[in-house]
Amino acid sequence: MGKLITFEGGDGSGKSTQLRLTADWLTSIGKRIITTFEPGDTQLGAKIRQLLLSGEDVPVPECEMLLFLADRAQHVREVVQPALQRGDWVLCDRYSDSTLAYQLAARKLGAADELLRQMLTFAECGVTPDLTLWFDLPVSAALERMRQRQQAGEKSTRLDDEALSFHQRVTAAFASQAEAEPGRMMRVDAVGDIKSVEQQVHHIIRTRFSL
Amino acid sequence: MGKLITFEGGDGSGKSTQLRLTADWLTSIGKRIITTFEPGDTQLGAKIRQLLLSGEDVPVPECEMLLFLADRAQHVREVVQPALQRGDWVLCDRYSDSTLAYQLAARKLGAADELLRQMLTFAECGVTPDLTLWFDLPVSAALERMRQRQQAGEKSTRLDDEALSFHQRVTAAFASQAEAEPGRMMRVDAVGDIKSVEQQVHHIIRTRFSL
Repeated sequence: MGKLITFEGGDGSGKSTQLRLTADWLTSIGKRIITTFEPGDTQLGAKIRQLLLSGEDVPVPECEMLLFLADRAQHVREVVQPALQRGDWVLCDRYSDSTLAYQLAARKLGAADELLRQMLTFAECGVTPDLTLWFDLPVSAALERMRQRQQAGEKSTRLDDEALSFHQRVTAAFASQAEAEPGRMMRVDAVGDIKSVEQQVHHIIRTRFSL
Repeated sequence: MGKLITFEGGDGSGKSTQLRLTADWLTSIGKRIITTFEPGDTQLGAKIRQLLLSGEDVPVPECEMLLFLADRAQHVREVVQPALQRGDWVLCDRYSDSTLAYQLAARKLGAADELLRQMLTFAECGVTPDLTLWFDLPVSAALERMRQRQQAGEKSTRLDDEALSFHQRVTAAFASQAEAEPGRMMRVDAVGDIKSVEQQVHHIIRTRFSL
């Protein structure tokens, strides 16, 4: 069996950049790697992502949550699980921790947290990460990075428009998840430059997998 | 508050015909009626229905279930709940009982029945039917009706291709749901002609709502 490493954090936290660097590094030391993301990295998932993020439709909160889970189930069964069974290492940009953090932050659902967690487990189809890296960046710094990206012409999505306090609740939710599962979910201090963050990532992965 | 009546049963059971007749009757006695269906009776839901039934994509079982629930949540919040709050009577072609019966019949999900039920309740967003009519027709008769429809040029969908034993399990699941909730879910013998089935429906609705 391969290994699943998920990359989590708010927008602008640098997780996607670090995912690419990690893929290069692990490839260079002889691992077979696939990189993937949620939502949307299957043929069906791309259509679900469109429903979630295009702004053409406005899913109600329960529908939004269920669409994220539907995308995940398809992604796990079609992409992640087969890759792990081939022995590949899978690096995934966002997974269940993102869904939980954003849902807890939004607090628009009437369901008990326990039911939300059970639904997340259902959608994972038995595939839990071997390691989750949480890129922790103060919200003010993340928003500054996102502003720079938008000035550079990157398309904004509906979810980029949420308020500051929302992003703070997302960060608090990630922090509490990392505290609850210290063996799986590791905090990365995402404030420094790319190189210094990369060094932390290498250290965590080397330690976790005895590389 | 209005009333929600859901029409359940296998394909070919006559539920959609009886729904239209019931709408005409209730309108004629002065009720304000809306008729609706699942999956797909919102702008977003129509796109979800496309993902489920077009055959272009093949959702894995967990994804399929979650897409049905996502459609339901959107439908409840956008259509059913506002209509009930206006005091309208809502007649809905398929609802949670269909999802449960078809999922239990397919038996492709690893989840415990209890979790499935909790997820169904989550997607209902607090809106449970005041009355559910289950149109019970032996599978052989239903398949004969469906064959006639196809000869008449009606388009078949991916779900029409399932095997006989599957439809028998669907019927068994509806029967056990009706047994578990006799106050809400009433069996209609769907074998007779349209008129005789319609008389049963009138009788049940008159009794349930003292009309």
